[in-house]
Amino acid sequence: MKKVGVIISGCGFMDGAEIHETVGTLAALENHDLEAVCFAPNINQMHVVNHLTGEAAEGDIRNVLVESARIARGNISELKEDSCDNLDALIFPGGFGAAKNLSNYAVKGPDMEVNPIVAQVVNRVHKAGKPIAAVCIAPMLLACILKEKSPVLTVGAQGPDADNLTKIGGNHQVTTHEEVVVDTTNKLITGPCYMLDASVGQIMRGADAVVAKMKDLI
Amino acid sequence: MKKVGVIISGCGFMDGAEIHETVGTLAALENHDLEAVCFAPNINQMHVVNHLTGEAAEGDIRNVLVESARIARGNISELKEDSCDNLDALIFPGGFGAAKNLSNYAVKGPDMEVNPIVAQVVNRVHKAGKPIAAVCIAPMLLACILKEKSPVLTVGAQGPDADNLTKIGGNHQVTTHEEVVVDTTNKLITGPCYMLDASVGQIMRGADAVVAKMKDLI
Repeated sequence: MKKVGVIISGCGFMDGAEIHETVGTLAALENHDLEAVCFAPNINQMHVVNHLTGEAAEGDIRNVLVESARIARGNISELKEDSCDNLDALIFPGGFGAAKNLSNYAVKGPDMEVNPIVAQVVNRVHKAGKPIAAVCIAPMLLACILKEKSPVLTVGAQGPDADNLTKIGGNHQVTTHEEVVVDTTNKLITGPCYMLDASVGQIMRGADAVVAKMKDLI
Repeated sequence: MKKVGVIISGCGFMDGAEIHETVGTLAALENHDLEAVCFAPNINQMHVVNHLTGEAAEGDIRNVLVESARIARGNISELKEDSCDNLDALIFPGGFGAAKNLSNYAVKGPDMEVNPIVAQVVNRVHKAGKPIAAVCIAPMLLACILKEKSPVLTVGAQGPDADNLTKIGGNHQVTTHEEVVVDTTNKLITGPCYMLDASVGQIMRGADAVVAKMKDLI
């Protein structure tokens, strides 16, 4: 069975990984006979957000790896630069964790920087000619890391994020629910998921569509 | 569209709601054209567990409603005794949250007590003749609250939890993956989910099977 690294960025869309997208990704991998191998960086979250009020919880500190373990049911390892060298593909669920923990896009916009370990993992998998998928806001990571390759990506509709993706060096394609953008040259597969106002069913099917296209490129 | 109350008990199976089961429940409700209305009690969790190590995080305090909001993406309300009076059914995803936050089963076993608000909600929905579903360890709540009705329920295989369910006053039926027990007299629908060693796909299908049977009884 082919193995796919799943990079989780916390647990909850306001300060970590989007939970529906992450569960949808795990279910889609199983549905396509791919084995999920979960990782998260061992770093503190940028902050903690109370998901009931939407307000930052001042003074609260949570670790990305520890919180990601909630979604992975403990089946998760610390992300290191060579963690994914022996895997067959890589996938990033979305949520603000991609923009707050795996990078600083939420703060710096088009001047974003990606966590160095995440950037190294992506570069190593990409250089090995293996496919990399991302949904929701996570394609911004690929735009930044692989900007010299002019990657073709989607973050859903036109808007500030699509504009930023283009500024960073990506080529943005508009998508709606369950549509997938495939950059066959760079082997990148992206879909909008919760960048659009979506239902949980649309997220499940959107994640499945992305994984199906990713499998074609493995 | 018929409305179903979803009672969430935190975010993470070791100290709250099982995330895959909860997302699977939300997806299943949409799949069967039912509207999910999420609630959680506004109480502190029994404790916080580090899901990476499995150890209790001493001194850490988290609120069940606030953490449940992570899975519900903020679309959740405080559970009150009359919260579900105007809904058409009720469903409890599993996870230790059902045994640690919604009740004290994890500590007291067959001498368990259920959170008074949860018990009142279940009693009111049951007395109104509406169906109530539960998966994983959550059927233990129904065994306790409705013990005088000798409810027919499942927590999966034979074992200590099944024995306790019987001691409390329920009638246990053994089930395997994706099987559902329906107590037509009491309008209770239960399935094993992660009481068995299961994959995320089995959980998605198991939750869908429970919701399908629940819909038949609405």
